[in-house]
Amino acid sequence: MTVTTLLYRDPAAPVDARVRDLLSRMTLREKAGQLNQRMYGWDAYRRTPDGRFELTDALYAETERFAGLGALYGLLRADAWSGVDHVGGSGAADGAELAHLVQRHVVETSRLGIPALFVEEVPHGHMALDGTVLPVNLAVGATWDPGLYERAAAHAAAELRARGGHVALVSALDIARDPRWGRTEECFGEDPYLAARLTEALVRGMQGEPDEFFAPDKAPVVLKHFAGQGATVGGRNSAESELGLRELHEIHLPAVRAGVRAGAAAVMAAYNEVDGMPCCGNRALLTGLLRERWGFDGLVMADGLAVDRLARVTGDRVSAGALALHAGVDLSLWDEGFTHLEEAVERGLVSEEALDEAVARVLRLKFRLGLFEQPYSAGPFPDPAAGRDLSTALARAAVTLLHDDQGVLPLSGAARIAVLGPHADTVAHQLGDYTAPQRPGTGTSVLDALRRTGADVRHARGCALTGDDLSGLPEAIAEAAASDVAVLVLGGSSARTPDTEFDANGAARTVVSEMTCGEGVDLAGLRLGGAQHTLLDAVTATGTPTVVVLVQGRPHAVPEAAERAAALLTAWYPGPWGGEAIAEVLLGRAEPLGRLPVSVPRSAGQLPVYYNHKDTEYGGYVDDSAEPLYSFGHGLSYTSFAYGPPRLSGRTVEADVTNTGERHGRTVAQLYIRRLVTPVWPRTLELRGFRAVDLAPGECRTVVFALGAEQLAQVGADLETAVPPGTVEIRVAESARRALTAVPVGLRVGQSFTEPDETPL
Amino acid sequence: MTVTTLLYRDPAAPVDARVRDLLSRMTLREKAGQLNQRMYGWDAYRRTPDGRFELTDALYAETERFAGLGALYGLLRADAWSGVDHVGGSGAADGAELAHLVQRHVVETSRLGIPALFVEEVPHGHMALDGTVLPVNLAVGATWDPGLYERAAAHAAAELRARGGHVALVSALDIARDPRWGRTEECFGEDPYLAARLTEALVRGMQGEPDEFFAPDKAPVVLKHFAGQGATVGGRNSAESELGLRELHEIHLPAVRAGVRAGAAAVMAAYNEVDGMPCCGNRALLTGLLRERWGFDGLVMADGLAVDRLARVTGDRVSAGALALHAGVDLSLWDEGFTHLEEAVERGLVSEEALDEAVARVLRLKFRLGLFEQPYSAGPFPDPAAGRDLSTALARAAVTLLHDDQGVLPLSGAARIAVLGPHADTVAHQLGDYTAPQRPGTGTSVLDALRRTGADVRHARGCALTGDDLSGLPEAIAEAAASDVAVLVLGGSSARTPDTEFDANGAARTVVSEMTCGEGVDLAGLRLGGAQHTLLDAVTATGTPTVVVLVQGRPHAVPEAAERAAALLTAWYPGPWGGEAIAEVLLGRAEPLGRLPVSVPRSAGQLPVYYNHKDTEYGGYVDDSAEPLYSFGHGLSYTSFAYGPPRLSGRTVEADVTNTGERHGRTVAQLYIRRLVTPVWPRTLELRGFRAVDLAPGECRTVVFALGAEQLAQVGADLETAVPPGTVEIRVAESARRALTAVPVGLRVGQSFTEPDETPL
Repeated sequence: MTVTTLLYRDPAAPVDARVRDLLSRMTLREKAGQLNQRMYGWDAYRRTPDGRFELTDALYAETERFAGLGALYGLLRADAWSGVDHVGGSGAADGAELAHLVQRHVVETSRLGIPALFVEEVPHGHMALDGTVLPVNLAVGATWDPGLYERAAAHAAAELRARGGHVALVSALDIARDPRWGRTEECFGEDPYLAARLTEALVRGMQGEPDEFFAPDKAPVVLKHFAGQGATVGGRNSAESELGLRELHEIHLPAVRAGVRAGAAAVMAAYNEVDGMPCCGNRALLTGLLRERWGFDGLVMADGLAVDRLARVTGDRVSAGALALHAGVDLSLWDEGFTHLEEAVERGLVSEEALDEAVARVLRLKFRLGLFEQPYSAGPFPDPAAGRDLSTALARAAVTLLHDDQGVLPLSGAARIAVLGPHADTVAHQLGDYTAPQRPGTGTSVLDALRRTGADVRHARGCALTGDDLSGLPEAIAEAAASDVAVLVLGGSSARTPDTEFDANGAARTVVSEMTCGEGVDLAGLRLGGAQHTLLDAVTATGTPTVVVLVQGRPHAVPEAAERAAALLTAWYPGPWGGEAIAEVLLGRAEPLGRLPVSVPRSAGQLPVYYNHKDTEYGGYVDDSAEPLYSFGHGLSYTSFAYGPPRLSGRTVEADVTNTGERHGRTVAQLYIRRLVTPVWPRTLELRGFRAVDLAPGECRTVVFALGAEQLAQVGADLETAVPPGTVEIRVAESARRALTAVPVGLRVGQSFTEPDETPL
Repeated sequence: MTVTTLLYRDPAAPVDARVRDLLSRMTLREKAGQLNQRMYGWDAYRRTPDGRFELTDALYAETERFAGLGALYGLLRADAWSGVDHVGGSGAADGAELAHLVQRHVVETSRLGIPALFVEEVPHGHMALDGTVLPVNLAVGATWDPGLYERAAAHAAAELRARGGHVALVSALDIARDPRWGRTEECFGEDPYLAARLTEALVRGMQGEPDEFFAPDKAPVVLKHFAGQGATVGGRNSAESELGLRELHEIHLPAVRAGVRAGAAAVMAAYNEVDGMPCCGNRALLTGLLRERWGFDGLVMADGLAVDRLARVTGDRVSAGALALHAGVDLSLWDEGFTHLEEAVERGLVSEEALDEAVARVLRLKFRLGLFEQPYSAGPFPDPAAGRDLSTALARAAVTLLHDDQGVLPLSGAARIAVLGPHADTVAHQLGDYTAPQRPGTGTSVLDALRRTGADVRHARGCALTGDDLSGLPEAIAEAAASDVAVLVLGGSSARTPDTEFDANGAARTVVSEMTCGEGVDLAGLRLGGAQHTLLDAVTATGTPTVVVLVQGRPHAVPEAAERAAALLTAWYPGPWGGEAIAEVLLGRAEPLGRLPVSVPRSAGQLPVYYNHKDTEYGGYVDDSAEPLYSFGHGLSYTSFAYGPPRLSGRTVEADVTNTGERHGRTVAQLYIRRLVTPVWPRTLELRGFRAVDLAPGECRTVVFALGAEQLAQVGADLETAVPPGTVEIRVAESARRALTAVPVGLRVGQSFTEPDETPL
């Protein structure tokens, strides 16, 4: 009798039936509890003197308050904000034990035995002690390699699940339209098509092939942030947006759509507003577009404290919670507003049906994870060496050669090299925001890596990342002058230190130390620290050929480096082993494979500079060009390539690419379309495909791109995406700038473009 | 018999009946001709050796081609682009004669005797020889004085009509949201409410009280540009916009709506796109919103060559013309597209009904002007002294004192004054864009005006407006060091010289001479010319108290002036007699009455900086503040004022204002609302009223503001403007920044706000 009554306990029953059964047994308070994720996970436990973990009164109070626990955020998180470090936190060896301890308490205190979701930050690797740090998304964007990223994402998911975590929060949807924004590093770049392909890879890597159930080494992904967060005014973090619906659909939604199609389990509703209403309160966005038009059946989580922010317009937090739930938020993060949902339903501010729908979505994810069957399971920790290899491979593929006018690269092995600059001998500043403390000895700086090659390497830091202290300048100048070549490693940092002050949602507030990037750290002027510019001037003035390497979370405006350095590279934040990747490229042991996922501006004054602006043929400012210093898609190789004219062949387009240089190399062939006759004002170019091609010297290959509805579709006057009748030019080139002058092939699309629109943008 | 047949010739018949009658007699070709304004007016005539005017073959060909002439642009225009100067152009004495000559030809060659509209640029005074130049719109915005501007606009209209011109093209609708834009000078400022009040004043001043017929000294106004041209990306002239419909309605449409309500005869459709379609091809905007929703029954003119630009998406100019006509454009400017309307109708690209409607609107305006009765009439030229007085009064009211920390102003009469800088002794650079050549001796520079006072004045230019030539620096330093005070006049220039190169639409292309502002002259960095910054540093370093006066068409970013100058003023482009106005204020013979119509940025990197951003309480950039250097509404007086807390009283709000200083003075009391509980995410503050108050020392007065539907309305989720239920704070203060900390009074608006919505924004 008992077994048949408790349908929700039957693993053989359909998930939806189990959800309905469980829901029917729950009180209003228990339901409201499932929608809350109020507590910081690191407050749920403490380490005892004997080195074990014990649960806190805070956790007991929380489970009591909610008659269970819907989700717990950041149980495994470690960083300056959480205050979790190697002393008190859980590592690879004992993370699963901690998760087990907490889950057992949750299940045992829940009347119906409902386990909690453990939600963790996995923006570029799991943000936990011993988690493998990957390069930041902007570096991933520079690889133009979804396959490699998919493998790295799979590794990160396996690490998360091995530690007892369930759900991965991953930035993927923000499009980098203003490099002043400190979270530019979390974006795959400025382009919707590139971001969409990498978002798909992320979802496939972490979740595996779409299935009702998740494998034990796979993790449901919360794609963040939905939607348009990259378009806030002035690059100001979570500030207002003037974003219109057209710009939203053309630029900011394609990656979301791709992630949803790939089966993403959840999306996070963003802080910013769209059309006058913050995403967390925006029913047109969360319900009308996402669920009703796109058919998304996953979970919507709110960004941290974003529901409470709605009290700015509703007047209080209870009604803020009701507004968010009605809009389509299922699970809140840290808010007080959602803790009053019971009251909100009783007062009639929101319907119990809306509440039930949200609870059903939370429960459904728990069933899909198998948590009712195996609440405490954790797989084996994947091989750390594999993680390190994937991280290094991404870093290597992200290193982008911007110019090498004097041909100093690759460096000859015998030369005496001065390795200079505040980024030359640091691993901490290579990592980016959202990283856990690293164990000493983890990672490789540029200096380490170059020294290991046995080269005659001298080092001087010259100056710090920030500030105007020039006391180290003479030593750097002397080393540069005495060397055959100088490698000057400059850039920014998102490294949070214990003395950083934080907002309630973990964004940096008072910036101390050397932070110039990361969440809450926006930069108006796009310049490096003052002393770095002086160092650049001084080192290049010695006459020693200088290779400048920028390690950064955004494109800084350093036109001086373009002018004065013999060669210029950017490695973005390449992760712990980034120094190795950079050194390999400098020495020619690896090819520079990176291509720019964002346009590099000349100055903050010329923003915005993205390549896919509307086609208005603007002539330029009187005091500056309106064109970027380096174009989207740009990245040199140690060899050179020639692109033949594109040819149309049915529903494909192809072009011959030849390695015209003396070395093996890889080029990233980029397919752009340029709309000529079209019902809505077009952008200058739109990326619609890319292929990496490895070529031996003299070798020629034909690259083939699909050319169907997905490539030709445009957001119409009605905001629906479809292939319009008209004329389109197809261009294949090595960068957006080159595409502008590449020989095109034209294509006329009649009213009768009848290919089934299976994968529109 | 003949009289009764030609109904359209009967002045006693209703205008609509006359229009219908005339339309019924016209051929398709004649109709198409009425919609064209293809020719440059200055190509229609030449001066003969005996000093008279004669018509050109170009005009004969044009009237032949169109079987008449719809409109003629710029017959009286004089400037570097048209090449018209005092040698060949028409002045106050013979403008009417020239207009008469052309009109007679048009009427005589038209089968039905239809006169042409003479359309002229009157952006800040009639842009013709001997036209009285007024301060640019941005200076008008700084006066916060619609009454004074109305009188000046009336004078300009009378000048236009006295010369035989009919229709005035006037910038009014562009909202200055990005000071990089070179046409910022043509905006009334960043605020929709202030712009709306000045647009009403413009329409009232030029057109008179709304009436079917225009008085002989009144001119129908073409308000430009409709819509959203101030929102192009990056401040790039006529480039793309990412403007959403909400931002359009909240910021860019209120001035248009106000102008339409005031009876504006016409609007000009802008170059930029709105929601993916340039305004000239945007039927939702020109027909759906403007005519159907707002009930506008006037004329829509396209901006110069804007119709032809539509060929970028339609593929050719014939279909571009059809698209524009269908969208709602009645009269084109210089385009080829509209010359093919006959063909477009015959090919079925656009209906003859659409053509007829447009022709009817053009004819209607000609009837309203009485051109069929008096095609050649021109009134007497109004008193030039009155024009000069109005121009000077506007300039005086626009001079804005930004800081006077050391109390050096007003200058004591006895001091020795060094008058320095490239703007100190020039009238040409005070005028702004869209000005005709001035007769020698017209106007007053700052140096002229100060010398005339009998003060001990020394002068050195120091440097040019642009470039890096520092050879004049030593003399300027010496004069500064030897004086009691230095008046350093810096700034930008929109003065076009004969060597400027122009685009086909008259925007400057290759910038030569000293232009740093004006149409086509956008500035990425917002800095003055390099030498000016050096001069500023050098003069202030002498230790002589330095008063910096900025003469400019946009707010430049010169934080150094704020830091190092003893006092800082901006006069914008004050017009020919601006030097006099500036000198009067410096000497205390006039009060500094100006208030900022735009926020003054610290740098281009922190853009945008308008006060009425959405309320997100952004904390600032890590390398700079996000707040402007000087706030919208700011402007000091030589006395000081205290504002009491606001009091609600029925449908008004009042506050007591006291002159707490020792001098007579005028304050501009500004009413702001701040929405607390509201259905759409609110802006931090919204200006909803302003009143200038003159106060003797110690005097206190109560200022009273209306507080009804117009003040409380908000653009709702449905984009309709209405008063939402909610809570609002009312603040009265001297600037937007002060309003943020002013004591508010709260107002709760129920669902039952039932005041008839007679004048919503």
